[in-house]
Amino acid sequence: MNDIIIIGGGAAGMTAALYALRSGKKVLLIEKNSFGGQIALSPRVENYPSIKEMKGAEFSDNLFNQIDDLGLKWELDNIQKVEKNDNTFTVIGEYATYSAKSVIIATGVEHRKINVEGEDDLIGHGLSYCATCDGAFYSGQDVAVIGDANTALQYILLLANYCNKVYVCTLFDKFFADPTLINRMKKKNNIEIIQNIALQSFTKDGSELAGLNFINTKSKNKVNISVKGAFIAIGQLPKNDFLANTIDLTKNGYIQADENMATSTEGVFACGDCIDKKIRQLTTAVSDGTIAAINAVAYIDKI
Amino acid sequence: MNDIIIIGGGAAGMTAALYALRSGKKVLLIEKNSFGGQIALSPRVENYPSIKEMKGAEFSDNLFNQIDDLGLKWELDNIQKVEKNDNTFTVIGEYATYSAKSVIIATGVEHRKINVEGEDDLIGHGLSYCATCDGAFYSGQDVAVIGDANTALQYILLLANYCNKVYVCTLFDKFFADPTLINRMKKKNNIEIIQNIALQSFTKDGSELAGLNFINTKSKNKVNISVKGAFIAIGQLPKNDFLANTIDLTKNGYIQADENMATSTEGVFACGDCIDKKIRQLTTAVSDGTIAAINAVAYIDKI
Repeated sequence: MNDIIIIGGGAAGMTAALYALRSGKKVLLIEKNSFGGQIALSPRVENYPSIKEMKGAEFSDNLFNQIDDLGLKWELDNIQKVEKNDNTFTVIGEYATYSAKSVIIATGVEHRKINVEGEDDLIGHGLSYCATCDGAFYSGQDVAVIGDANTALQYILLLANYCNKVYVCTLFDKFFADPTLINRMKKKNNIEIIQNIALQSFTKDGSELAGLNFINTKSKNKVNISVKGAFIAIGQLPKNDFLANTIDLTKNGYIQADENMATSTEGVFACGDCIDKKIRQLTTAVSDGTIAAINAVAYIDKI
Repeated sequence: MNDIIIIGGGAAGMTAALYALRSGKKVLLIEKNSFGGQIALSPRVENYPSIKEMKGAEFSDNLFNQIDDLGLKWELDNIQKVEKNDNTFTVIGEYATYSAKSVIIATGVEHRKINVEGEDDLIGHGLSYCATCDGAFYSGQDVAVIGDANTALQYILLLANYCNKVYVCTLFDKFFADPTLINRMKKKNNIEIIQNIALQSFTKDGSELAGLNFINTKSKNKVNISVKGAFIAIGQLPKNDFLANTIDLTKNGYIQADENMATSTEGVFACGDCIDKKIRQLTTAVSDGTIAAINAVAYIDKI
């Protein structure tokens, strides 16, 4: 049996693994898709103390290697359920069932969809939620970014480096992002900001994206943009439904954790973007992971 | 006037500066001694996510350069008092008086002394609280480390690399440190662990340390060790007395801060080792600094 199963291999989950492994515990880290989490998609990270600039993927790769060297066990699986019997947790995945004395949840959040007809069909055919992953496919072309917060602005700055033109499409008339990012964006001469517009439909050329059709929410005028690439960055959603019978969630689906990262079920801890909290930064994720692991280790040593 | 004055230039204070500067605020960072704080004294840091191994001083230097590049203003001064009048804070130092709209306290902690007669006179004459700083002076010689927790063990591991012999002197019969550190220490063949001993006096050769005189707390036997270098690593003390009239402190002198790092006085935030909390790690310090800065910026934008 494992000492600790960590569900989710982003910054918080991998940091929890780092601390648990350094405490001599047997740790199994289970990730659904690929290790790294949200930060791995960030083109440029400049707010991680002591590292002036790095790609988010470098952070993730380094952290994975750091814990791998400490004897991490890991699996790729999609967890369906977590059950507690006496002091043992059974973690049921799509492919296998695992057991541990304590569980740390670090499921993060996922991209929010814009919910316009045809969205799913266009993913990988011009539509993307990650400029870091897919931006380079549109080098020299015109693209659009839909969104107004830090992630959107990071995408815009990245795309402006190598795309012909970047349309910046926002629902309201302001940005909800760091002033440094806004200032840097405004210095780019190949962007065009179009505000107060809501996406209504996609234009397709065969199975590929050919354009975006908006309506101006004030004037009700139509705004049509011809682009072969569009990046949607309009926020994130937790993905904790599978835990509804295990621990208390907020009405928005985030996990309720206390200052010790303890959930409503003894022995289950949670950390990172999946918990209900105000500030979601890389620094707070690694802190959450630290605290969750230290308390999970203390819990195991106690039982 | 400054937007934000940060008192204390360790990991938490410098991270607060990083976030405040990136939000476009005018930041003055005031440090009493030297930038870096506790972490700068750590010979080897292996638990900062994504950096497998570094010297604590590298972390500090990199972070200082990172914020210096963003337009940081800084001063070396010893702050005596912080006063609030209307919405302006007056920060009174030994050398000058400064003003700001918000204040972030990041004073950290300082080394606890062992309170044995002659201690102060021997500092720099064989007695030290920092093996990273002073250990190399005793290369090839016999030294002692007094302490049983992580810092003590890190010192022991460092010193064992280049000293002839390291006496490990503990008050109780166990270590209160990470198992990985304990295991690594036990593999060293030039250490001698002596437990259940309390320091009674120093032996001097002129003005220099020549030995340590302990008593075994169980047998009451005397234990005398001849060493020219001794490192005391028995914990830390907050240094917030100068804030007693400004904000609420705990009876142990730590600052009471809520989850937003807000203190009892509106506009004053606190972060890092100086606040009352359970877990003090590099990861939690940078998280605290992030949260304090984001909330200080929001406070300024509100007033």
